[in-house]
Amino acid sequence: MERSRHQGMAKNTYMRWRLPLVCLLWEVAMIVLFGVFVRFSPEADAHWEEEKQEMNLTSDIENDFYFRYPSFQDVHVMIFVGFGFLMTFLKRYGFGAVGFNFLLAAFGIQWALLMQGWFHSFKNGEILIGVENLINADFCVGSVCIAFGAILGKSSPIQLLVLTLFQVTLFAVNEYILLNLLHVKDAGGSMTIHTFGAYFGLTVTRILYRPNLEQSKDKQGSVYHSDLFAMIGTLYLWMYWPSFNSAISEHGDAQHRAAINTYCSLAACVLTTVAFSSMLQKKGKLDMVHIQNATLAGGVAVGTSAEMMLPPYGSLIVGFICGIVSTVGYVYLTPFLESRLHIQDTCGIHNLHAMPGLIGGIVGAITAAAATEDVYGKEGFIKAFDFTGAYQTRTPSVQGGFQAAGIVVSLLMAFAGGALVGAILKLPIWGDAAAENCFEDDVYWEVPEDEESDVYHMHNPDKPASP
Amino acid sequence: MERSRHQGMAKNTYMRWRLPLVCLLWEVAMIVLFGVFVRFSPEADAHWEEEKQEMNLTSDIENDFYFRYPSFQDVHVMIFVGFGFLMTFLKRYGFGAVGFNFLLAAFGIQWALLMQGWFHSFKNGEILIGVENLINADFCVGSVCIAFGAILGKSSPIQLLVLTLFQVTLFAVNEYILLNLLHVKDAGGSMTIHTFGAYFGLTVTRILYRPNLEQSKDKQGSVYHSDLFAMIGTLYLWMYWPSFNSAISEHGDAQHRAAINTYCSLAACVLTTVAFSSMLQKKGKLDMVHIQNATLAGGVAVGTSAEMMLPPYGSLIVGFICGIVSTVGYVYLTPFLESRLHIQDTCGIHNLHAMPGLIGGIVGAITAAAATEDVYGKEGFIKAFDFTGAYQTRTPSVQGGFQAAGIVVSLLMAFAGGALVGAILKLPIWGDAAAENCFEDDVYWEVPEDEESDVYHMHNPDKPASP
Amino acid sequence: MERSRHQGMAKNTYMRWRLPLVCLLWEVAMIVLFGVFVRFSPEADAHWEEEKQEMNLTSDIENDFYFRYPSFQDVHVMIFVGFGFLMTFLKRYGFGAVGFNFLLAAFGIQWALLMQGWFHSFKNGEILIGVENLINADFCVGSVCIAFGAILGKSSPIQLLVLTLFQVTLFAVNEYILLNLLHVKDAGGSMTIHTFGAYFGLTVTRILYRPNLEQSKDKQGSVYHSDLFAMIGTLYLWMYWPSFNSAISEHGDAQHRAAINTYCSLAACVLTTVAFSSMLQKKGKLDMVHIQNATLAGGVAVGTSAEMMLPPYGSLIVGFICGIVSTVGYVYLTPFLESRLHIQDTCGIHNLHAMPGLIGGIVGAITAAAATEDVYGKEGFIKAFDFTGAYQTRTPSVQGGFQAAGIVVSLLMAFAGGALVGAILKLPIWGDAAAENCFEDDVYWEVPEDEESDVYHMHNPDKPASP
Repeated sequence: MERSRHQGMAKNTYMRWRLPLVCLLWEVAMIVLFGVFVRFSPEADAHWEEEKQEMNLTSDIENDFYFRYPSFQDVHVMIFVGFGFLMTFLKRYGFGAVGFNFLLAAFGIQWALLMQGWFHSFKNGEILIGVENLINADFCVGSVCIAFGAILGKSSPIQLLVLTLFQVTLFAVNEYILLNLLHVKDAGGSMTIHTFGAYFGLTVTRILYRPNLEQSKDKQGSVYHSDLFAMIGTLYLWMYWPSFNSAISEHGDAQHRAAINTYCSLAACVLTTVAFSSMLQKKGKLDMVHIQNATLAGGVAVGTSAEMMLPPYGSLIVGFICGIVSTVGYVYLTPFLESRLHIQDTCGIHNLHAMPGLIGGIVGAITAAAATEDVYGKEGFIKAFDFTGAYQTRTPSVQGGFQAAGIVVSLLMAFAGGALVGAILKLPIWGDAAAENCFEDDVYWEVPEDEESDVYHMHNPDKPASP
Repeated sequence: MERSRHQGMAKNTYMRWRLPLVCLLWEVAMIVLFGVFVRFSPEADAHWEEEKQEMNLTSDIENDFYFRYPSFQDVHVMIFVGFGFLMTFLKRYGFGAVGFNFLLAAFGIQWALLMQGWFHSFKNGEILIGVENLINADFCVGSVCIAFGAILGKSSPIQLLVLTLFQVTLFAVNEYILLNLLHVKDAGGSMTIHTFGAYFGLTVTRILYRPNLEQSKDKQGSVYHSDLFAMIGTLYLWMYWPSFNSAISEHGDAQHRAAINTYCSLAACVLTTVAFSSMLQKKGKLDMVHIQNATLAGGVAVGTSAEMMLPPYGSLIVGFICGIVSTVGYVYLTPFLESRLHIQDTCGIHNLHAMPGLIGGIVGAITAAAATEDVYGKEGFIKAFDFTGAYQTRTPSVQGGFQAAGIVVSLLMAFAGGALVGAILKLPIWGDAAAENCFEDDVYWEVPEDEESDVYHMHNPDKPASP
Repeated sequence: MERSRHQGMAKNTYMRWRLPLVCLLWEVAMIVLFGVFVRFSPEADAHWEEEKQEMNLTSDIENDFYFRYPSFQDVHVMIFVGFGFLMTFLKRYGFGAVGFNFLLAAFGIQWALLMQGWFHSFKNGEILIGVENLINADFCVGSVCIAFGAILGKSSPIQLLVLTLFQVTLFAVNEYILLNLLHVKDAGGSMTIHTFGAYFGLTVTRILYRPNLEQSKDKQGSVYHSDLFAMIGTLYLWMYWPSFNSAISEHGDAQHRAAINTYCSLAACVLTTVAFSSMLQKKGKLDMVHIQNATLAGGVAVGTSAEMMLPPYGSLIVGFICGIVSTVGYVYLTPFLESRLHIQDTCGIHNLHAMPGLIGGIVGAITAAAATEDVYGKEGFIKAFDFTGAYQTRTPSVQGGFQAAGIVVSLLMAFAGGALVGAILKLPIWGDAAAENCFEDDVYWEVPEDEESDVYHMHNPDKPASP
C-alpha cells in the first residue's frame, strides 16, 4: 500500500491545501453572489398571500410547488443516487464515484442557480428562485455528471470542480441559445443535457488522453458486489426518468403525456438491450455493462419529444432502436473510439448519452415538424409549442428546422467548450493521478484496511486483527 | 469455472439465439399492437385544454396526474427496486434476481397496458391510457414478480418471459371477473395480485419440481452483504406499501385512509415478526429471512380493506396476526411444503403473499359486510363501494359474499392457470439449467472474475493480477 | 465462532423469551390503546364528502393528503433507509444497524401516534389521525434514531425498545412545551428532534459508559463495501431533507421556501465538509466518515429557520459553517468526548445532530427576532408566526426570546430524560453484550457462514462446500 502511494506521488496528488482552498473560496463566492442576487420567487415568498389575491387563486394548491415538487425529488435522486451509484461499478473506485459525484453536483447546483437565474429568472436586478429553478439546476448538473462518466477514475476532485464551473457556464449559454433564441422545445434535455453533456465530456477525455492507461486495466473492471451497487443507480435512473422528462413540462396534459411516453420508451429499451447483449456475446450470456447502461438510452432519446404528441407506439419504437444502438455501441464502438480516436470513455457515455441524445434531438425535430392542429387541438397546439408573441406565425415545419438547428448548436458548443476546458484541465497543477494509479480510491480517499483479512478475522475473533 | 459451464451445457442453457429472438419478436408485437390500439387518455392528450372546459375544471391541478403520480412512482420503485433487490439475498444470484426481474417487468408492463386496456379502457376501438393505467400495469406485473419468487434461481430468462406473457393475460381476466363481474373492491390487490400471483407461482413451481435440487443447496443461502442488499428491497417495499394500497383508490378520503391503514398494519407486523423470529430459534437469535419478508405481510393483508373504514386498530390486529403467520410459515411450513408436497418455494412466497393474501381477502369481505351508512355517511357509503347503477341495491352483506367469491375465483384461476403454464414451462426447449447449476449467475451472465483475488490484488498493486 | 458466542453468554444475551415478550406485550398494548382512542381525521374519514360541503371545498385535491403525502413518503424513507443504512458503516454490524432501526422505528411510530395524538389531535376523547400525524410520528422516531446512533453496537434490542418507549414519551412532552406553551416555531425540528434527540442519546451513552470498549475496537471500523452501503443512507437523508424541513410547514409559500432553503444549506455544507476533511488529514485525503455525516449538518441547522424568510444566502452561510463545525467535531471533539468525558458516541451524533441542532435553534431565534412586516407582508407575517389569538400582540423580538427558551428547555429535557433512561438501561436485565462482543451482529442475529470460503467455493464448484 505504501508503495502504491509513493508511486502516485510521482505525480503530485497531494490535495491538502489545493482542494480546501478551491472549495472554500468558491463557496464564499457563492455566498456573496447569492447575497447580491438571489431572492425567493413570488410563490416561495411570504408575500404569497397577497400574490394569491392578485392572481385570483383560491387555493394554496395552485402554488407551483405542488405541481413540481414530487418530480423535483425524483430528479434529485437521479442526480445523486442515480448517477452516483451507476458509476460505482468499478471494483475499487466506489468512493470516488459516489463521493466526487456528490461534491461536483453540490457545487454545480449552486452555480447553476446563478447562471440559469441570470438568463431566465432575472427581474429588477434579482434572481427569483422557486422549485422550477431547483429542477433546472439539477438538470444542468446532470450534464456534468454525464461528462464525469467519461473521465471517471482519471481525474482529481479539483479537476472535477473546475470542469463543473466551466461546464455549467457553457450549459447555461447553450440552453439560452436553444430555448430563448431558437425557441426550441427540449423539456427532457435530449439536446441541452445529453447531447451537450456527452460530447463535451468526450472532447475533454480526448484531450486528456492517457497513452499508458492499460497500466491500470486490471482495475477498470467490476467485482460481483460493485455490479449490484451499480444496479441501484441504474434502476433509480430508469424508474424516475418519467419524472425527469416531465418535470418542467407545462402543467396538465404535457406533464402527464411526457411521463407516459418515457415509461413506454424505457420499457421497450430493456427488451432490445437484453436481446443484443445476449446476441453479441459468443456464449450468449448477458453483460452487466449493457443492462446497467443501455436500458436507459430510451429515456434519453425521448427527452425532447416525450411532452409532444408522440404516440405511445412511437415511444416504443424509439426505445427499441436505442436499446440496440446503445448495446452495439458498447460492444463495437467504445473499443474503436479508444484504440483509433484515443477517446477513453470510462462509462461509455457515448453509447448511453451521446448517440441517444442525438437520436432524441432528431426525433424531437420530426415530431415537432409533424405537428398539426388536428392532433393537438387548436389551443393545445399553441400551448405545446408556445406559438405566441413573436412566434405566433411559426409553422411546425419551421419549428422542426429550429429543433434541428438546436442539435447542431449543442454539438458545436460541446466540441468548442470541451476543447477549451480539456486544455485547461491538462495543466499539470490539478493533482490528477498517474496512469498506474487511475481507478483507485486510495489516491484521494482514506480507504479502510484489507477487507479480506477483516472477514477472516470476524470469524476468528480470538485472533488479533493485525497478525 | 470452465467445468461448471460445461456441466451447465449438459442441459442446453445456451441463450444466444433463443433469448434475442423472443425479446425482439415480442417487442415488435408490442409496437404493432400499441400502434393499432393505444392512444392517450383525455387527461394526457393535448386536447386537455378543451376537455377542461367541457368538464368545467378551473385548474390543471384537477388532472388525475397530480392525484396519482407520486403514488405511481412509489409503486414503480416497489416493482423494480423492491422486488428486484428483495431477491438478491442469494449469495450468487444477485444479477439474476435484479436483472431478470427488470426484464420480465419491463415486458410485462407493456403487455399489461394492452390486456388491462382491452378490458377497462377500451373506447371506440382504442385503448386510452393515463397514469392510472401505468399503476395498474405495475400492479399486474407485481403478481408476476411474486410468482418469480417461487422459481427464483431455477428458471431461464425465456421461461420467465413466457411466464409473464401468460400470467399477465390470466391476471387481466381474473381482475375483470372480480372487479367488473363480481363488482368486488380490491384496491391494494390482496386477491388479484397476492393471492392470485402467489398460488399461481406455487402451482408452477410444483409442476416444475426438481428432485435433485439439493445438489445446489450450498448456493441457496445468503452471504453477509447479500442480506444487506436484500434489506434495500425489503425497506422500499415496506415504506412505499401505503402508496401501493392507496394508489388507485378514489380521490380524497379513500386514498388518505388506505395509506394510514397500511402504515399501521405494517408497523404492527414488524413487532410480531421480530417476536416470533426470536422465539422460534432455539438460541433466540433473529433470522434475516424473517425480517426481510414477514415484516411485509401486514401490507399484503390490508390490501383489500385498507381503503374501507377498517379502523386503525383493526389494521394493527391484521398486521399483528400476519407477522406471526408469516414467520411461523417460514419456520415450519416452507420445509413441509418442500419435503411433502414437492413445492420448492425459493423466496417463501407462500408465507409472504399467499397466506397473507388470503387473510387480506377475508378481512376485506368481513369489513365490507360490516359496513353501515352510519360509519361511512350516506354519500360515503355509496362512494366507497360504488353502489350505483346496477349495484344500487346491493347490501353490505351481499357485497361481503361477493368479496369472498372473489377469493375463490382467484384461487381457482391461479391453480388452473399455474398448472397450464407450468406444463408449458416444463417443455425441454426453454434452456433452464440443471439442478446443480441452479442459483448460480454464471449460467446466464458474464460474471466478473474472482472477487477474492481482486481484493488481494488491490492491496498488493505491484503483484500481477493472475499469479 | 462458537467461542465468541460463549463469551457473549458471559453476559446473558439470550433473547429468546425476553424479546418476544416485550414485542408482543407492547404491541397488544398498542392495539388496545388504538382501539380506545384512535380514529380517522375528517379528511381520512368516509364522511369527507359531507365535510367537503361544510368547508365549501370544491375539489378532492384540497384534501391535506395531496399537500403532504409526497413529503411524508420522503420522510419515511429518511427514517428507515436513511438512518438505517447510514449506520451500516460498521464492518460487522449491518444487520443490527438496519434491523434494529427498523424495529425501534416501527414500534416508535405507533407510540408516537398516541403520545402526540393526546397532546395535539385529541377531540372528544378520540385521537383523530391524518397524514400530518404520520409525518409527526416519523419525526418523533427520528429523534430516537439519532439517539440510537450514539449507542449503536452496544445495546440489546430490548434496550432499544425501552429507550424508544421513554424517548417518544419525553419527546412528546418537550414538543408540547415548545410548540404549545412557548408557541415556538420549529417545523424541521432543529430543537425538538435534533437537539433533544442528540443530547438525550449522548446522556444515555455517558451513563452506559463501557470502560473496556477498546476490546472491540477492531470492529468499530468500516470495510470498503460497508462504507458504500452507508452512503446510500447519507444520500437519501441529504436528498430528502428538503422534504423533511418542509413537510409540516403551512401550505403554500412556507413549504416551498423551506424546501429551497434546505436545498441551499445542504449544498454549501458539502463543500466545506470536503474542504475540512482534506485539510485536517495530514495526507490530504478525504475521510468517508465526514462525507457520510458532516454533509448533512446543513439540513439539521436550518430545521427551524428554513420556513422563515431566511434568504437563500443565509442558508448557504449556515451550511458553510455547519460543514466546518461538524467535520472539526469528528476530528477533534469525538476523541476528546470519549477519552475525557467518557461519552462513547458510535456515530458521532454530537457532530451531526447536537451541535448543528443548537446552531439551528439559534439561527431560528435570530431569524424570528429579525422578522419584519416589510419582509413578510402583513398577512404573511401573521401567518408565518401564527401571531393570532393569544399571541396576537407578540413581537418578533419576543418570539426570538421564546425560540431561545425552546433551546434551553430541549437541552434540559434531554439531560434529565437521558439520565433517567440511561439509569434504567443500566439495569443488568436487558441482555446487552459484553464489551468484547460489541459491534458484532453474531450476538443477536443468525449470521450466514463465512463469506470468504463461499466466494472461494463459487469459483471451484467441484469442491465441496465444507472441506
